[in-house]
Amino acid sequence: MNHFGKLFTVSIFGESHGEGLGVLIDGCPAGMPLSVEDFIVDTERRKGGLQKGTTPRQEEDLPMFKSGVFNGKTTGAPLMLLFENKNTRSGDYEKQRSVPRPGHADFVANKKFGGFEDYRGGGHFSGRLTLCLVAAGVVAKKILKGISVLAQITSIGGEKDIDKGIQRAIENKDSVGGIVECRVDGLPLGLGEPFFDSVESLISHAAFAIPAVRGVEFGTGFAAADLFGLQHNDSIENNQGKTTTNHAGGVVGGITNGNQLVFRVAIKPTSSTPKEQFTYNWETDQMENFAVRGRHDLCIALRVPPVLEAVTAMVLADLMLREQHIKRVYS
Amino acid sequence: MNHFGKLFTVSIFGESHGEGLGVLIDGCPAGMPLSVEDFIVDTERRKGGLQKGTTPRQEEDLPMFKSGVFNGKTTGAPLMLLFENKNTRSGDYEKQRSVPRPGHADFVANKKFGGFEDYRGGGHFSGRLTLCLVAAGVVAKKILKGISVLAQITSIGGEKDIDKGIQRAIENKDSVGGIVECRVDGLPLGLGEPFFDSVESLISHAAFAIPAVRGVEFGTGFAAADLFGLQHNDSIENNQGKTTTNHAGGVVGGITNGNQLVFRVAIKPTSSTPKEQFTYNWETDQMENFAVRGRHDLCIALRVPPVLEAVTAMVLADLMLREQHIKRVYS
Amino acid sequence: MNHFGKLFTVSIFGESHGEGLGVLIDGCPAGMPLSVEDFIVDTERRKGGLQKGTTPRQEEDLPMFKSGVFNGKTTGAPLMLLFENKNTRSGDYEKQRSVPRPGHADFVANKKFGGFEDYRGGGHFSGRLTLCLVAAGVVAKKILKGISVLAQITSIGGEKDIDKGIQRAIENKDSVGGIVECRVDGLPLGLGEPFFDSVESLISHAAFAIPAVRGVEFGTGFAAADLFGLQHNDSIENNQGKTTTNHAGGVVGGITNGNQLVFRVAIKPTSSTPKEQFTYNWETDQMENFAVRGRHDLCIALRVPPVLEAVTAMVLADLMLREQHIKRVYS
Amino acid sequence: MNHFGKLFTVSIFGESHGEGLGVLIDGCPAGMPLSVEDFIVDTERRKGGLQKGTTPRQEEDLPMFKSGVFNGKTTGAPLMLLFENKNTRSGDYEKQRSVPRPGHADFVANKKFGGFEDYRGGGHFSGRLTLCLVAAGVVAKKILKGISVLAQITSIGGEKDIDKGIQRAIENKDSVGGIVECRVDGLPLGLGEPFFDSVESLISHAAFAIPAVRGVEFGTGFAAADLFGLQHNDSIENNQGKTTTNHAGGVVGGITNGNQLVFRVAIKPTSSTPKEQFTYNWETDQMENFAVRGRHDLCIALRVPPVLEAVTAMVLADLMLREQHIKRVYS
Repeated sequence: MNHFGKLFTVSIFGESHGEGLGVLIDGCPAGMPLSVEDFIVDTERRKGGLQKGTTPRQEEDLPMFKSGVFNGKTTGAPLMLLFENKNTRSGDYEKQRSVPRPGHADFVANKKFGGFEDYRGGGHFSGRLTLCLVAAGVVAKKILKGISVLAQITSIGGEKDIDKGIQRAIENKDSVGGIVECRVDGLPLGLGEPFFDSVESLISHAAFAIPAVRGVEFGTGFAAADLFGLQHNDSIENNQGKTTTNHAGGVVGGITNGNQLVFRVAIKPTSSTPKEQFTYNWETDQMENFAVRGRHDLCIALRVPPVLEAVTAMVLADLMLREQHIKRVYS
Repeated sequence: MNHFGKLFTVSIFGESHGEGLGVLIDGCPAGMPLSVEDFIVDTERRKGGLQKGTTPRQEEDLPMFKSGVFNGKTTGAPLMLLFENKNTRSGDYEKQRSVPRPGHADFVANKKFGGFEDYRGGGHFSGRLTLCLVAAGVVAKKILKGISVLAQITSIGGEKDIDKGIQRAIENKDSVGGIVECRVDGLPLGLGEPFFDSVESLISHAAFAIPAVRGVEFGTGFAAADLFGLQHNDSIENNQGKTTTNHAGGVVGGITNGNQLVFRVAIKPTSSTPKEQFTYNWETDQMENFAVRGRHDLCIALRVPPVLEAVTAMVLADLMLREQHIKRVYS
Repeated sequence: MNHFGKLFTVSIFGESHGEGLGVLIDGCPAGMPLSVEDFIVDTERRKGGLQKGTTPRQEEDLPMFKSGVFNGKTTGAPLMLLFENKNTRSGDYEKQRSVPRPGHADFVANKKFGGFEDYRGGGHFSGRLTLCLVAAGVVAKKILKGISVLAQITSIGGEKDIDKGIQRAIENKDSVGGIVECRVDGLPLGLGEPFFDSVESLISHAAFAIPAVRGVEFGTGFAAADLFGLQHNDSIENNQGKTTTNHAGGVVGGITNGNQLVFRVAIKPTSSTPKEQFTYNWETDQMENFAVRGRHDLCIALRVPPVLEAVTAMVLADLMLREQHIKRVYS
Repeated sequence: MNHFGKLFTVSIFGESHGEGLGVLIDGCPAGMPLSVEDFIVDTERRKGGLQKGTTPRQEEDLPMFKSGVFNGKTTGAPLMLLFENKNTRSGDYEKQRSVPRPGHADFVANKKFGGFEDYRGGGHFSGRLTLCLVAAGVVAKKILKGISVLAQITSIGGEKDIDKGIQRAIENKDSVGGIVECRVDGLPLGLGEPFFDSVESLISHAAFAIPAVRGVEFGTGFAAADLFGLQHNDSIENNQGKTTTNHAGGVVGGITNGNQLVFRVAIKPTSSTPKEQFTYNWETDQMENFAVRGRHDLCIALRVPPVLEAVTAMVLADLMLREQHIKRVYS
């Protein structure tokens, strides 16, 4: 249930305010150099602590290697990366437990798990779990030698000027959504399968595992629905499959076609808006005015790029292994 | 690879111009009435033969039950539904094999499978395989008693008046894309899991298995990226989880929240446009003008609704079994 | 549930006296020559119609290719092999339905599937389904170029002289069990994983899918439990891993070690003994004397060798793909 | 690869002399009380430190709960149980690395993982990993309320008097094998599936994940091969499926039949015999006399019962969930 992949598999666990969280990775080739330092860039990017619009919570957020690494290299055995929670203030959450926060999983988690869920800070549903995804992505990216996976924000609150989008949210004292686009260069032609294991199926599966993602589109995406065939088709230029345009976003028939892979995700505004909301209270069994307390990002989209890169890299590492572009012993 | 699901599993096979195609379904509860007549409505809807803008190719398109049904009821053993191909005109495709059709899988299939693919009419990549999905959907819908899964076109070529959208394509002598929306009523709260097995992950995985789908969005979807938090959050009204609005589209934290499930897919224009295209020819190793021959839909989106319902029902039947809302013996 | 494998996957379906039965194979490399003739030897071996002690039922038992083969070669798309049932005499079974046959699945199938099971001749539980396994094995063996998978009977009813074992059963007018041994030569070192995906785990999983198998042992097997360490350990001779003895049966730590793979299965006596049995009758709700009617093998073990080879080849093809010894395009 | 199960899933990781080892369990019902104390009995049984014939190595061997438990109860989220390694003496192993130990995975691990494996004390292949299995078993057993899973040794070195078997090994200054039998009472009728998901297939799969297991047999097992049908068949007595005898060991057609589940595993003598062995040395590229150093069990079979119970309970918990005998919220 918290497990993904066929040959390169990723299982995540943990809670926002529990002992810790982490990721178990199986199928990583043996002999790949791996150090804690490898995780600094992407875990820092995910923290986003220095940017306007992101939460001030700071953890060291570097993994402890509990298995699978020996003498600085992967062994081919399962890789356990563990993060400890240190800087937690559960009290913030305890106080407002009677109100399931709108847009959060509080209500469904309570019903689904019979009230036994760890409700502190979203528990297992917390966005903090994306740290596990980022860590898996660091490993996956190292496997994908010569392939660049790069995500960036393309709009915030409808503004292509991102600063302006954030500024509007700050002024409006509300959270705001955004669009993140991912581009992958250097992929071989032929990854993926028609139908259920299409590249789009697998990437969207993984992308919707990121909390707050509300849509995924490839290439021209939703805009393709408004086009005529001649406008959307990409003419093939040569026997390497290069196309004159890339409306397909690099995938045709579920298979990579040798061009740049391009897709976008829509991120909803952070559910924890500073604004007051009129919503249900379990104790009173009535609706009432409510304001979320605690530390929160105004724009969670700002922290999504390394997470989106991570899940993309996970899918691609798995497909590269299936197609035997990656060996079981690293080289 | 051509297999989907955990407890209710669906495996598809077949080619457009080969012996036949079909679907193997495992995990169907025993004792459910099932007859060939059950398949008429959705397979007819998929054919779309009577509508403007769809292909004139007509097959009987009713399945033969090869296993899993006894005395008119499912047995609990695997259900094999086979369709025969009768009305095929492979010659159309043989003639133009030297040109991999833009927007089609011809090029990638040839490279991926070393030239051994069945290239006639798209072979295993053909949209005809959606018949297998529809058949699986008929079975899944019967399992989902009291749950309504309904998809419909909401725009064609950017026009909300669908007739007008089709008319523009006919006048323009080009194919055209569209949007299909699916709504599910009657779902219990609590289906799905956080992260990898979120409802969105599983449905998008299945939806992108439908050829021509370029985007999937839930609830407010991509528009959510432009909103503030207070605009997007759905206030909870009562202890059943009813919300005042439904921007979430019925899924929060990856879990159904008891409200209507709503999502949309973007369908690209049919790749086989009647227009001439300038594209690569394998024989000449050059680009040239090329026009697709054969029977094709001007707007494949018109045939998508029953297919989208089908894959949705497959996912939901699986989740309902996981949550034990459905018993292994039908009742 | 009726599905096995990770990269080379096999799904079986069908009933003894229904329309037919078959196997869906996914993950077969593209470009492998495959003809109906390839299936003659092993399906004939499985029939065992000419041997003493096997059932006189004769079907043509050659598969129809419904998908995945084009111009005499596999395409890389799913391979559907269908067998039709022609020579069935259901009446034999209808008459005695009130008595669940001892040693058969009649009783458990009825309870598990709520009475909706196809009870004719064992329905989906029938040994006839091993035909599907044999067919999958034919494909798997073709993939395993240079590797020989050979099973043979080593004892019948405790007699190493097989004819004598059968003769004793005939004289005793009772069915009888036997031992089948499988040896695999030419396997590369390094297949399998420690723990859950050990070669022993995967092969025993597949071997116990064969009806009537009651035990599986590797190398010295159960006899190893009586030995001292020095007696059982195989000394390594050289850097290729050759060992002086082969008590391990070619697997150490779950991994093939480059020596011959050797294992044995125990086959119980055919449950349908000609002898009268005192057992429960559903109609009378009492125990009574009962004799099985219909066509049956005195010694089902005689038909097991090609089935055991088949499931072994399936497992090995999957492992060879995982270790990238087999390419996705056949060569 | 190190992952097992469909609804109740178990993933193990770790090394003998690394940071630690552990198990990630997903699919455990929410609301089940779970404390560290629950693990004492079975982890102590596994240690076997007080018995003759077992290794003196002592670890505390109690798990740290890193996720999935809140207020003393499971939350329904993944359960991470971590064990730390404290009492390790890697030096013992470093000294003799040039000789791959006969019967151990040293040789195959080195070849399979390109020399990058953690070779200290068997690394990921170590029997110490069975601690992870035992921990998963503790959780699984708690789920299986009203079901007793009990394994015991039935012979050592061919002696049914276990003390005598051990004594012979001590006198002979050699390691020795044994037989372990597992009996399960209280199982409902109807678990398992015909063919690939037969109870025998799943249990043997899990049992062969235990290092040193060389054979698995159900009910009468290998002895069934020597019997006539009338001797082996179990007559059914009543509509609950009770049988007069239990040669089937509680499984017919792959399905539990409501009688006691009985099976046995053969355990080879501990590979690390105190005796000198003539075997290959990587440094000299020649065979030479070699004696294993370090702490070892004379008879590893003595420690197998709790491990065998554990993997059995894992399989049964999964099957009970599939058949909906266990709810997703504990009660």
